[in-house]
Amino acid sequence: MSESAALLPLINSPDDLKPLNTDQLKQLASEIRQYLVDCVSKTGGHLAPSLGVVELTLALHKVYNVPRDKVIWDVGHQGYVHKILTGRRDQLHSIRQYNGISGFLRIDESPYDIYGAGHASTAISAALGFAKARDFRGSSESVVALVGDGALTGGMAFEGLNNAAETRTDITIVLNDNEMSIAENVGAMATYLAKLRMQPTYQRAELAAKGMVGKLPVYSELAYKAARGVKHAATHWATPMHKGLLFEEMGLTYIGPIDGHDIKTLLDVFSHVRRLKGPCLVHVLTVKGKGLPYAEADSRRYHGVSRFSPDDGLIEAKGGTTTYTSVFSEVLNEAAEIDDKIVAITAAMPDGTGLSRFAKEHPARFFDVGIAEQHAVVFAAGLAASGMKPVCAVYSTFLQRAFDAIVHDVALQNLPVRIFVDRAGLVGEDGGTHHGAFDLSYLRCIPGLVVMAPRDPGEMKAMTRFALSYQAGPIAIRYPRGGGAILSDDIQPIEIGHAEVLNEEGQDVALIGIGDGVALAVNAAKLLAERGIASTVVNARFCKPLDAQTIGRLARGCKAVATIEDNVIDGGFGSAVAELLEDQDIQTPLVRFGLPDRFVEHGTVPVLRDQVGLSAQNIASRMAAKIGKPFSPALKPVAVA
Amino acid sequence: MSESAALLPLINSPDDLKPLNTDQLKQLASEIRQYLVDCVSKTGGHLAPSLGVVELTLALHKVYNVPRDKVIWDVGHQGYVHKILTGRRDQLHSIRQYNGISGFLRIDESPYDIYGAGHASTAISAALGFAKARDFRGSSESVVALVGDGALTGGMAFEGLNNAAETRTDITIVLNDNEMSIAENVGAMATYLAKLRMQPTYQRAELAAKGMVGKLPVYSELAYKAARGVKHAATHWATPMHKGLLFEEMGLTYIGPIDGHDIKTLLDVFSHVRRLKGPCLVHVLTVKGKGLPYAEADSRRYHGVSRFSPDDGLIEAKGGTTTYTSVFSEVLNEAAEIDDKIVAITAAMPDGTGLSRFAKEHPARFFDVGIAEQHAVVFAAGLAASGMKPVCAVYSTFLQRAFDAIVHDVALQNLPVRIFVDRAGLVGEDGGTHHGAFDLSYLRCIPGLVVMAPRDPGEMKAMTRFALSYQAGPIAIRYPRGGGAILSDDIQPIEIGHAEVLNEEGQDVALIGIGDGVALAVNAAKLLAERGIASTVVNARFCKPLDAQTIGRLARGCKAVATIEDNVIDGGFGSAVAELLEDQDIQTPLVRFGLPDRFVEHGTVPVLRDQVGLSAQNIASRMAAKIGKPFSPALKPVAVA
Repeated sequence: MSESAALLPLINSPDDLKPLNTDQLKQLASEIRQYLVDCVSKTGGHLAPSLGVVELTLALHKVYNVPRDKVIWDVGHQGYVHKILTGRRDQLHSIRQYNGISGFLRIDESPYDIYGAGHASTAISAALGFAKARDFRGSSESVVALVGDGALTGGMAFEGLNNAAETRTDITIVLNDNEMSIAENVGAMATYLAKLRMQPTYQRAELAAKGMVGKLPVYSELAYKAARGVKHAATHWATPMHKGLLFEEMGLTYIGPIDGHDIKTLLDVFSHVRRLKGPCLVHVLTVKGKGLPYAEADSRRYHGVSRFSPDDGLIEAKGGTTTYTSVFSEVLNEAAEIDDKIVAITAAMPDGTGLSRFAKEHPARFFDVGIAEQHAVVFAAGLAASGMKPVCAVYSTFLQRAFDAIVHDVALQNLPVRIFVDRAGLVGEDGGTHHGAFDLSYLRCIPGLVVMAPRDPGEMKAMTRFALSYQAGPIAIRYPRGGGAILSDDIQPIEIGHAEVLNEEGQDVALIGIGDGVALAVNAAKLLAERGIASTVVNARFCKPLDAQTIGRLARGCKAVATIEDNVIDGGFGSAVAELLEDQDIQTPLVRFGLPDRFVEHGTVPVLRDQVGLSAQNIASRMAAKIGKPFSPALKPVAVA
Repeated sequence: MSESAALLPLINSPDDLKPLNTDQLKQLASEIRQYLVDCVSKTGGHLAPSLGVVELTLALHKVYNVPRDKVIWDVGHQGYVHKILTGRRDQLHSIRQYNGISGFLRIDESPYDIYGAGHASTAISAALGFAKARDFRGSSESVVALVGDGALTGGMAFEGLNNAAETRTDITIVLNDNEMSIAENVGAMATYLAKLRMQPTYQRAELAAKGMVGKLPVYSELAYKAARGVKHAATHWATPMHKGLLFEEMGLTYIGPIDGHDIKTLLDVFSHVRRLKGPCLVHVLTVKGKGLPYAEADSRRYHGVSRFSPDDGLIEAKGGTTTYTSVFSEVLNEAAEIDDKIVAITAAMPDGTGLSRFAKEHPARFFDVGIAEQHAVVFAAGLAASGMKPVCAVYSTFLQRAFDAIVHDVALQNLPVRIFVDRAGLVGEDGGTHHGAFDLSYLRCIPGLVVMAPRDPGEMKAMTRFALSYQAGPIAIRYPRGGGAILSDDIQPIEIGHAEVLNEEGQDVALIGIGDGVALAVNAAKLLAERGIASTVVNARFCKPLDAQTIGRLARGCKAVATIEDNVIDGGFGSAVAELLEDQDIQTPLVRFGLPDRFVEHGTVPVLRDQVGLSAQNIASRMAAKIGKPFSPALKPVAVA
């Protein structure tokens, strides 16, 4: 740390960066890193990505005038520095917490957040929209998309590049290349970028010819000296090296690679790039976790992190409950030991989906395809069509990208692809872009697709086994982030389209839960029982096919039915039950509990659940009211799991 | 035509091609073209794509042994020749007709159809699945993906290429380059391929060095002589030309371009490519509509064609009804005349979506982004975020690809993107891959998205105007292929979330239609009226937000409610009404009419509708039964529109 007076407290908007010189910016970078670690160690969050872009963010905000200039951040998880510099320094301690600032960029959070995100690979397409709008207006602001190398494995990024080059509009794509998405990057693009990084020669002449200053410094850390750009038909082929040809062949001016931690270089390059015409790609090399030794050493671990000790990086233990993901991982590995037809596919989420262990034990049968959910599912369809047993593990919110692949390639052809839909329901601190709020709705409309959800980690084991052995067609199993209390060790065998009746005590109400809605049903039943209201509790197990017989029978025999799910109530599981009741002419009233018809904020899952009414208390009191019984709030609450 | 005895009648499987020499194959190509024109002129169908791949298909089936070798056809609309050669010659006259063979490849139609499709850009990903499954088995069959240049604009194709190169497995991608998707191709990739096509020199030495025969003939028609391949670090840069570097940079061996109508060349190349290791891309130049002058001259018109005169190509007129698409086109152009913020985006469907006229009149404000639905929607989001009024016109079935973009980029940010969902509901002859069966289900679960559907082309006009002026957030309007009878010239003003009550005569049943379900409701009401059953007929207009007040009031006041929609009943409009009835404690029984929970076949829309029970007769009789009234089938049917 510099001994000079602290600069960070003086930075309240990007305007305050303008008078700073390079040495001051370096000092500021150092202060920002310290502040980031101080804050994120207390809150948890995306640490390594933000540490990697401190200088890059400073340079962008020094050279460009946001919000007049449009700088668009892909994903946005690397945007903490941007938030610090754009008036949200003092709110950083509230990041990802309920009522605090978001862990991503949001257009409704700040005028400096030009465009929001959370999913990868969208920035080029969005930036192109801003650029064309500028052209129509006839104004002259710059448009910059900041994109990670991981995001380039997503097809939409390619669609964007393909169109960026076509339009010939002025747009700068900053490729923030840290050789990672969340895990190591994969695919031809990654190999290609690795070659670019190895480029030995800095071709000053061409840059000078195009008006680039001749003072770009040598890339210090890795002896990369490169910076090169601007397509020349004649000089293009002078030396047998890789020089961004892939991008240049696509019609983009390629500049780089440049050292993303050298502020002087970044300022020089952006100052000149700003005046370039046409689409241009600036290849910036950064180190994820930069400046924090333990984060640099294991940036995968410190990508998104819980609270940790800033001194040694020790991450706070999460309580050690069995998670759904770990159950999946364990059962999958057991099954793969004895069935060599099982293969596993993930889209850049080997750790998050629990496939890392499978990757280690069965590397040949493991495929991380990058941020490419469509490819993941169609690749799985091809594998299934030729007799393999593919398992595709994707987060619910990202599986939205593969919706057409599930319809068109998997279900239409009735191929036995097993889709493991992790992070279904509310995910907590990542918020609106990441809640798995829609999968029951968008999956249950697909003909022939089996859709199920386990009531607890114990049933997850049984359902995973069931899904792995199911060969009659495609099957999806959705389950939440984290763990859950074991409701009962007694697991009835899984049969397709059969619900599990946990107790059939009640003539008053039937509480039908799916997934972790079952635990809420159990707890609501306890609250009701305390008030003399008898409930039948059902674990639906299957959203599709629904157990029409069991649910119909129980609905007929009670005074009111509740459905409980961690999915939007529009078109979700409760909606399927509403259809069923109508189809069977059942007059028993139905109350659907689930996520509301709006995007839910970030915060802890318990807080968010309370806020949306997904609590045993709310369910019990509304069901009591539904059947005209009193529900005294004065009663001492029972212990609920 | 050759004077030799006809060969085509002798070809009952690809085995029958094996003994034929080049001259015989040429004769066969000619016979196949004649047969294609004979058949498709009577049935309609995808003519120009199949005419373009006659020699290519012959060469593939001569060199490879399908089904042992896995040849996978992207989209499959170019598969007619493949069908002729694989035992379905005599069924070609039934193509795309109810109970006839499909217009696309289908794994359940023939063992030679290794993998099915209908949407573009999936073949590389699927082929990679087959290739890896082969590697696990340890068998040695070839895996070939046949992909059009149009399909390369789709992000999934890039995801597939990115992973194909990574795996290093043996896979051949045949790039069928006719410079078209359905319309002219767009984007950097198209420009790039155009450069490859202009390549002046045929680099024989490198091919010879790699064991390719040295006898590849000059590309006759366009003086392209090129054929080149196999990556060499040293020789790679010898000449300042484009030589497939983009593909080679991605790790694929590039071979081409070669003449796709020269059977000898094709046979030579594939015979050698078959033995190549690793992923390889063969660039084949074909002419869409080849051999039929009027189809070559206007391949866009003859891409998918109605019945036509084989002599002069005169296409049978379609009756001249006003289509929903043409109404959209007209209103959009009117509005764009006075509002220069309106821009229009399509994903390779300028003709089909009615945007061709806009493209002509407002070329600067028109964007055909290629087969890139995700980019189309996110690009629109960027435009909307900076004050433009983007209109995105996409077929319902293809919009499935943009589901996440609609959730994550448009709805979550509440951006006023106007999504025009063409070809909603049953589309007819294109069948299961193309029916727009799911959009009401997958759109209505998205918070903040307005989803509406017009009852007839007259209301389409009003709704288009409404959508164009709507600025409060995103809005989608879904409408069917073709036209529809005008139900009433009296159009009440469109108000968000308000249904239109067409008549409120009935205390017996309420028939609530949405989109072209309203015409069915009107006709069913007539049938019921003839039997003394009084119906209220409602045009729902909005699937989201639903008119809870009107529907609730009417449902309370009748004995049974029907919902009628051209969408799957799982999670669709009727499902939304079921939710509403439950939420409002309304006991009136509900019958939901719509598409069944299975994939619907191909055939004419009226035939398919009858088959799935979407007929006024079926609706009327079931509703009569629902309220316990007789419905005499002996009554003389009334005229229904």
